[in-house]
Amino acid sequence: MNIVEEIWTSLTAVRSSSPLIHNITNYVVMNNTANALLAIGASPIMSHAHPEVIEMVRLSSAVIINIGTLDEYWAESMIMASREACHLRKPWIFDPVGAGASTFRNKIISNLLSFNPSVIRGNASEIIALHEQGMLSGSKGVDSVNTVADAENAAKALSQKYNAVVCVSGQADYIVYGNRYAYLRNGHPMMAAVTGLGCTATAMIGAFAAVIPQDIFLATVAAMSLLSVCGEIAAKASEGPGTLQVRIIDNLHAITQSDYQSVAQITTGYY
Amino acid sequence: MNIVEEIWTSLTAVRSSSPLIHNITNYVVMNNTANALLAIGASPIMSHAHPEVIEMVRLSSAVIINIGTLDEYWAESMIMASREACHLRKPWIFDPVGAGASTFRNKIISNLLSFNPSVIRGNASEIIALHEQGMLSGSKGVDSVNTVADAENAAKALSQKYNAVVCVSGQADYIVYGNRYAYLRNGHPMMAAVTGLGCTATAMIGAFAAVIPQDIFLATVAAMSLLSVCGEIAAKASEGPGTLQVRIIDNLHAITQSDYQSVAQITTGYY
Amino acid sequence: MNIVEEIWTSLTAVRSSSPLIHNITNYVVMNNTANALLAIGASPIMSHAHPEVIEMVRLSSAVIINIGTLDEYWAESMIMASREACHLRKPWIFDPVGAGASTFRNKIISNLLSFNPSVIRGNASEIIALHEQGMLSGSKGVDSVNTVADAENAAKALSQKYNAVVCVSGQADYIVYGNRYAYLRNGHPMMAAVTGLGCTATAMIGAFAAVIPQDIFLATVAAMSLLSVCGEIAAKASEGPGTLQVRIIDNLHAITQSDYQSVAQITTGYY
Repeated sequence: MNIVEEIWTSLTAVRSSSPLIHNITNYVVMNNTANALLAIGASPIMSHAHPEVIEMVRLSSAVIINIGTLDEYWAESMIMASREACHLRKPWIFDPVGAGASTFRNKIISNLLSFNPSVIRGNASEIIALHEQGMLSGSKGVDSVNTVADAENAAKALSQKYNAVVCVSGQADYIVYGNRYAYLRNGHPMMAAVTGLGCTATAMIGAFAAVIPQDIFLATVAAMSLLSVCGEIAAKASEGPGTLQVRIIDNLHAITQSDYQSVAQITTGYY
Repeated sequence: MNIVEEIWTSLTAVRSSSPLIHNITNYVVMNNTANALLAIGASPIMSHAHPEVIEMVRLSSAVIINIGTLDEYWAESMIMASREACHLRKPWIFDPVGAGASTFRNKIISNLLSFNPSVIRGNASEIIALHEQGMLSGSKGVDSVNTVADAENAAKALSQKYNAVVCVSGQADYIVYGNRYAYLRNGHPMMAAVTGLGCTATAMIGAFAAVIPQDIFLATVAAMSLLSVCGEIAAKASEGPGTLQVRIIDNLHAITQSDYQSVAQITTGYY
Repeated sequence: MNIVEEIWTSLTAVRSSSPLIHNITNYVVMNNTANALLAIGASPIMSHAHPEVIEMVRLSSAVIINIGTLDEYWAESMIMASREACHLRKPWIFDPVGAGASTFRNKIISNLLSFNPSVIRGNASEIIALHEQGMLSGSKGVDSVNTVADAENAAKALSQKYNAVVCVSGQADYIVYGNRYAYLRNGHPMMAAVTGLGCTATAMIGAFAAVIPQDIFLATVAAMSLLSVCGEIAAKASEGPGTLQVRIIDNLHAITQSDYQSVAQITTGYY
């Protein structure tokens, strides 16, 4: 099987097994995240209450931690859930939204990273901020000018340091794990005008990781590729980002193997 | 008048009187819930702050309590609101999302049930979990295999115990109150892929209960039937669950009496 | 330049400079608010955590405070952010959702008004409630019958008292600042059936204020006019409020200068 066939097989497994995915995510994207997970056949749970968060991790097949609208209470929920996922060796996927934008956010990120995320997914500036923070050099903040090469180097270093799959979303998505890497060249510029598609991607990684926990790199490639292919197809039929947000959900639900395979652009390799 | 005519008359009352519906609900569905209530002509309020929740109950004609993303603070808001609604004999509608999934959730559910909900609406596993909890037998958890008959028996027992209308959402919706029952045979399988339509149904029950508080059974049948008819019509014109979510709101706003009456499938009877 | 040309120039500035807009807003509208800001080219931040809210204000070019689903924690976040914005002389835009509906809400509103909002935007009953509260006469509550003239008089008085631009949303939008005023006669009745379009308007005012801080009156007129023009165009192509919500976002992204200028109806003048 080539990788697009492997990805399709994984999607079939998500659709047939409906894995329970526990999300502690931000208020902005909860509805879209739940709908995207349902569209690919997974079962979303959204729960953050301290007295139940451990039980929810135990019930679930993967855990999503997204710090977009965190506060002290939610930060503690995230720490409890990621610690338990780490302890149970369940996949947990980390979306460090706004890394580098505040001292508080950076501190919580450090705590969460200590619980061995399976996957870290962010945009270039977030991945670079995580890397710089790890080097104790402080963040340059959101306005720093970063190159694609900076982000890829940061991703490689983070992957080594945390033994995690690291994904940098961008014009091309870059995914690295140990000496394996992939570039995904799908998507559409209009996707940047839809809020929270990165968060959706993170949640979808959890759904794939739940069905192929033995290959989290493939799970990450699968989720990112599926979303960017569906977004690319949807964008061509959309008059703007409002329609695009809706049609991505439609496509995640309805996409066929031949549609997916004819659009997907994936390059993989080894360093 | 037959029941579909009675339902249409109730909808006309919602549209003309715009009842204020107070929602303490989950983060995932707040936008859709507000839009669904507006679409049928009701006025949604979303408020959970302890210092104002009692005042909001007093201003409103019905109260919706949905525990989807509860935590300790929100649980207390829900208890304050349901207690006040009970005290004022205002209709309050209970959606026990995730019943049985955690000890915390079950404890809050027990507290809320003590304030005499007018209606309890859930899916089969939630209604069965509520019933089992009441029998002190513990929950089987979300993975137990339940039959339709189990759910209907649980609904009958809960209705007797709490003197409440109980609704089990499913392929056919089942509604029971004392010796009255109804089966609704509308909807579409794709509706299960849209997050929070059950929560939307619960909120809509509140809008109908606000205008016909003397017949909460009919209010429940009306809301459930209207939503499943609008969903069925919308699904036929939708390419996926994204579009479906949007078109259900359109249909709730635009549906005509003849469209509704030609699609609605309702069986009622007495035990 | 006439005013529609000035507005278009301001929109061009938003699109080219992508100002960072910090939102402390309500759960119901967060997704739509973020999407509307992205659609016009701005960059939304949603953050309310006490340990980071000051840093977020400093990073941002304008701050939006919307009390729709406030509680004690969020109220404190709002006070911290508005105080800092006032201190830094950054534009901050106030949406007093539900003013007059509870004692708690009125108290928080009083606190927030003490930090000199640049703009206050509400519907007629909210603006009247703010004015009455300022006169210590108590609120009439949400059911009072108000005339358009009452609202305009309240807006004028509030504008004088707080040296703020005040906008009353309604069938015609009314905007006043000192001796300047504007009436905007666009929009569509179906917009009232979409939740949170007022909140979207408030956020958009922030985006325009960020690029023309020297003319907050024009920024307010620009945001309100753009949204109501896009809503009017979208409503004509929508079958209901679900589709309308989506197409407004499309139009905010795609609208051209000639489309905008051929539809916009703005009257400005001096008292």
